[in-house]
Amino acid sequence: MTFIKTPVKGMAEHLPKDMALREFVLSKIKENYKKFGFSLISTPIVEHIENLTSGQGGDNEKLIFKILKRGEKLNLDEGVENLADSGLRYDLTMPLSRFYANNSDSLTMPFKALQIGEVFRADRPQKGRFRAFTQCDIDILGDNSNLAEIELICATVQTLNSLGIKDLKVRVNDRNILKGLALASGFKEEETGDVLIIIDKLDKIGLSGVKTELLENGYSEKSVESYCKYFENILNVLPKDLITNQTKDFVKQETIDNLTEIISVASSVLKGCNIVFDPTLVRGMGYYTGPIFEIEIAGYNLSVAGGGRYDNMIGKFAGKEVAACGFSIGFERIIGIIEENNLIKAEESEKIAAILSKDLSKEKLEATIAKANKLREKGKIILLTPRNNNVKFQKTKLLENGFENIVEIFNDKGELDG
Amino acid sequence: MTFIKTPVKGMAEHLPKDMALREFVLSKIKENYKKFGFSLISTPIVEHIENLTSGQGGDNEKLIFKILKRGEKLNLDEGVENLADSGLRYDLTMPLSRFYANNSDSLTMPFKALQIGEVFRADRPQKGRFRAFTQCDIDILGDNSNLAEIELICATVQTLNSLGIKDLKVRVNDRNILKGLALASGFKEEETGDVLIIIDKLDKIGLSGVKTELLENGYSEKSVESYCKYFENILNVLPKDLITNQTKDFVKQETIDNLTEIISVASSVLKGCNIVFDPTLVRGMGYYTGPIFEIEIAGYNLSVAGGGRYDNMIGKFAGKEVAACGFSIGFERIIGIIEENNLIKAEESEKIAAILSKDLSKEKLEATIAKANKLREKGKIILLTPRNNNVKFQKTKLLENGFENIVEIFNDKGELDG
Repeated sequence: MTFIKTPVKGMAEHLPKDMALREFVLSKIKENYKKFGFSLISTPIVEHIENLTSGQGGDNEKLIFKILKRGEKLNLDEGVENLADSGLRYDLTMPLSRFYANNSDSLTMPFKALQIGEVFRADRPQKGRFRAFTQCDIDILGDNSNLAEIELICATVQTLNSLGIKDLKVRVNDRNILKGLALASGFKEEETGDVLIIIDKLDKIGLSGVKTELLENGYSEKSVESYCKYFENILNVLPKDLITNQTKDFVKQETIDNLTEIISVASSVLKGCNIVFDPTLVRGMGYYTGPIFEIEIAGYNLSVAGGGRYDNMIGKFAGKEVAACGFSIGFERIIGIIEENNLIKAEESEKIAAILSKDLSKEKLEATIAKANKLREKGKIILLTPRNNNVKFQKTKLLENGFENIVEIFNDKGELDG
Repeated sequence: MTFIKTPVKGMAEHLPKDMALREFVLSKIKENYKKFGFSLISTPIVEHIENLTSGQGGDNEKLIFKILKRGEKLNLDEGVENLADSGLRYDLTMPLSRFYANNSDSLTMPFKALQIGEVFRADRPQKGRFRAFTQCDIDILGDNSNLAEIELICATVQTLNSLGIKDLKVRVNDRNILKGLALASGFKEEETGDVLIIIDKLDKIGLSGVKTELLENGYSEKSVESYCKYFENILNVLPKDLITNQTKDFVKQETIDNLTEIISVASSVLKGCNIVFDPTLVRGMGYYTGPIFEIEIAGYNLSVAGGGRYDNMIGKFAGKEVAACGFSIGFERIIGIIEENNLIKAEESEKIAAILSKDLSKEKLEATIAKANKLREKGKIILLTPRNNNVKFQKTKLLENGFENIVEIFNDKGELDG
């Protein structure tokens, strides 16, 4: 028999110390989101292959871990494409669509869902990037007003704050502005998707890189020059500044007013949090239909949470239109930041270790366990553990694990206090 | 595109009300086990196919959901046996073996592990039996003293009690007694495994059924008669009663003393809990090597937790001997019992719903959100939700979801109290 000691590539296992922090952070996230009226739901990790490959997942559909059919259903003659009947979910949004379609009669509308669960992507593993990782998503289904965006932003900022992650910058934009400016610059409707994918590279390759790539893709110099002008001076620009004679037929006043109100109300409520309009924010996924947002921490050039409105997706499963807006926290990323900066520590009860001599009489053993149970009832953590041969090493290890109070118990001496 | 609305067969999804109870029960289980010094760890849901099929999992190895190789590694010419490189874990014990082998240097010994996670079995789905379900396991690795058994029993009984599950009966036996009695009755060493599998059916087919099946399997009438005599009168029998002239060369006095002490100490500590020796208890898994135990609830003829000592398994991965003893709570089963009998209710904060008129001014909206945030800081759950056309139906649904306090907010009237 061959045993393999290490975990499957890209899949993390967690030691007690890691787990204590992860659990503490998860409990804070749940506690905070619950206060905003979000309800925890859960969907299976395994999904129908038909749903996973319906086109909703974009590039993630190339990264599916597929599950082999079983028994007679597995037939090699049907070819590679027909070996799997299910797979591991690549995100929590696709399962939410199915969940909503299956359960909408039982849900309050608008429905505020909180999902915390593992997702799987057969990506190339690299530092800080796993093939199995935890996502924390909040979604509001059935609310087409901007109360949804405002509440998502407030709830997420306050949740991050509760984890010791302060000094946040919330960048906000609207897909319809990005698209309207492209149309006003002369791009065709059907070109806007690809053009936005290139604009999304702005922070990596700079504006000149974007221009070069747009031109290389064969778009007219006039359109490219005109479009890129909007991204030259983005400091202190307001949504309304983008309405000009050139754009007014392509960018709706309603879109501008809506975004302005989101920024204004969220800024007023979240005093001290920097909420800015950023016309260069694209967010990769093609399914967004309105406002989009991303949160970064000052000093870190990376986003820790992102989301937006995606009104056309949930309804595909349900066969009717369902407004939808969501925000996702990059859980593995914030765990990394919290650890690196020692932002919060998992709260723990007092930990006492009792090292029991092996020849303890039955009476002393019973008395010790009874005392331990009394202390446990008071909320203390009591570890009863047999005496190792190397008791010095044993004590060192216990100290390392947070047992600062260690009692040695023999037949005739030593006992638990309390 | 074909969408499938229902979850994959045998995989449950959970609505907010279910999830609230599940989360509450899980938090109680974690809180209680932690007090006994158990530390939460986590292992990946996906395991190497080599580890899953190493023989450790018994019949569960026939129920593996296998994950297809990806890219060039997938080659149909290599046949059905070589399509998968990994699979979903069927229990938490096999991953614990791998985890221990990979991390033993970082762990305090003895190591008290708490694992809560999903496991997957491609079993025939039926009422109350899923293909994906949550297991809660505690294991003590590296303790060969009976303190391990005593602590596992105490911790599990007290955890079940904290969930409102009282009136428990703990049945205890030792594999070495079952085996010793079989040898004393004339069965051969190599026959004992199969004989125990038949004895395990006692509560389903009765003693006469067991006799018939043993005889049908070709065992001698003398051995069968002799062995079955031990299971005739099991009320009030004590371990020491099983030592007779016939058995004394096959059942060790040490085994009897050990089991007697476990029962005696646990009974003394867990006052009011019925802990009994049951010589008919077998527990299916072949890997047990010593004391075994099962907990049932008076009035329910089913086990809600089970476990035992399995000293030869963990070490296979680590390449050295590691004493091990574990106890597993049937999470889905206890959730069912708690729901059915309304044993505990998830504790929830005060829930207030504010229904916001759609034409709320920006100022009133800001003031309302600010007030909501103040109440949230005080720990209350505040749902802000836009006014639906059918506000009466909306209120009914909110009430159903536990929002007993509902405020309607318009520009000129209504506001959140507090």
